[in-house]
Amino acid sequence: MSGRIFPTAQDAENAFYDALERCDLDGMMAVWAEDEDIVCVHPGGARLTGQDQVRESWGRIFAAGPRARVHITQQVAISAMMLAVHSVHENFTVEGDARAQVPMIATNVYLRTAAGWRMIVHHASPAPVQAAPVQPKEAAPKFLH
Amino acid sequence: MSGRIFPTAQDAENAFYDALERCDLDGMMAVWAEDEDIVCVHPGGARLTGQDQVRESWGRIFAAGPRARVHITQQVAISAMMLAVHSVHENFTVEGDARAQVPMIATNVYLRTAAGWRMIVHHASPAPVQAAPVQPKEAAPKFLH
Repeated sequence: MSGRIFPTAQDAENAFYDALERCDLDGMMAVWAEDEDIVCVHPGGARLTGQDQVRESWGRIFAAGPRARVHITQQVAISAMMLAVHSVHENFTVEGDARAQVPMIATNVYLRTAAGWRMIVHHASPAPVQAAPVQPKEAAPKFLH
Repeated sequence: MSGRIFPTAQDAENAFYDALERCDLDGMMAVWAEDEDIVCVHPGGARLTGQDQVRESWGRIFAAGPRARVHITQQVAISAMMLAVHSVHENFTVEGDARAQVPMIATNVYLRTAAGWRMIVHHASPAPVQAAPVQPKEAAPKFLH
């Protein structure tokens, strides 16, 4: 597993979406905590838990190679000392496909570990097809302490 | 808003599903933090933020009156001092409908406030129709400190 250290939850989130765009499996797994309680729900998918299931699922997703770009909007972030929760809209654009994609709604949870911040939960589900963003709010992160 | 105090995140979660079963809007909103950054994603729905949107959505859901029971299984819980994250399967049974329902996968996040633990995120999405539970694991809650 990578020894990469993310000093903030936002750094981990940036690395997550960077790895996702690049279909970089090692980069993706370097973002996740080395913990059997990690939880990953892909859009329309079952709940996966633990390193093996999560790695295997990203491996399948990445097998087709990089085709999509993702632009993150409408982040709501709530941070405490050891855990941080980010709710975001993932806006994908697919190479060679000009159609607008439905955004995915993701809840991402990060844990502060001895090796920096790591992802412990990624739960994504498609927004309704016709839903415009309910509130175009760019909230400032909230820090509890 | 209710002055009800939940001493643990689990107490808040129990009250959440109790209010959901009883279609008790005041009971439901008593579980949520009084915070404009609360986030609620109903299955297939858009992301809702803030007390007004969240209350309005539950009001619509509860308008039909209580018909369903919900049984929570496969909880994975990760708790820190100020935030707790629970991933659960929500297994609904609908009165007068013997068909098995697809479980919902929910990520619930709780915040320790001055008034006890309150919900700040509820993100639910349907599990795939044919997915058996991937891992029938009843994990013990993990406490970080």
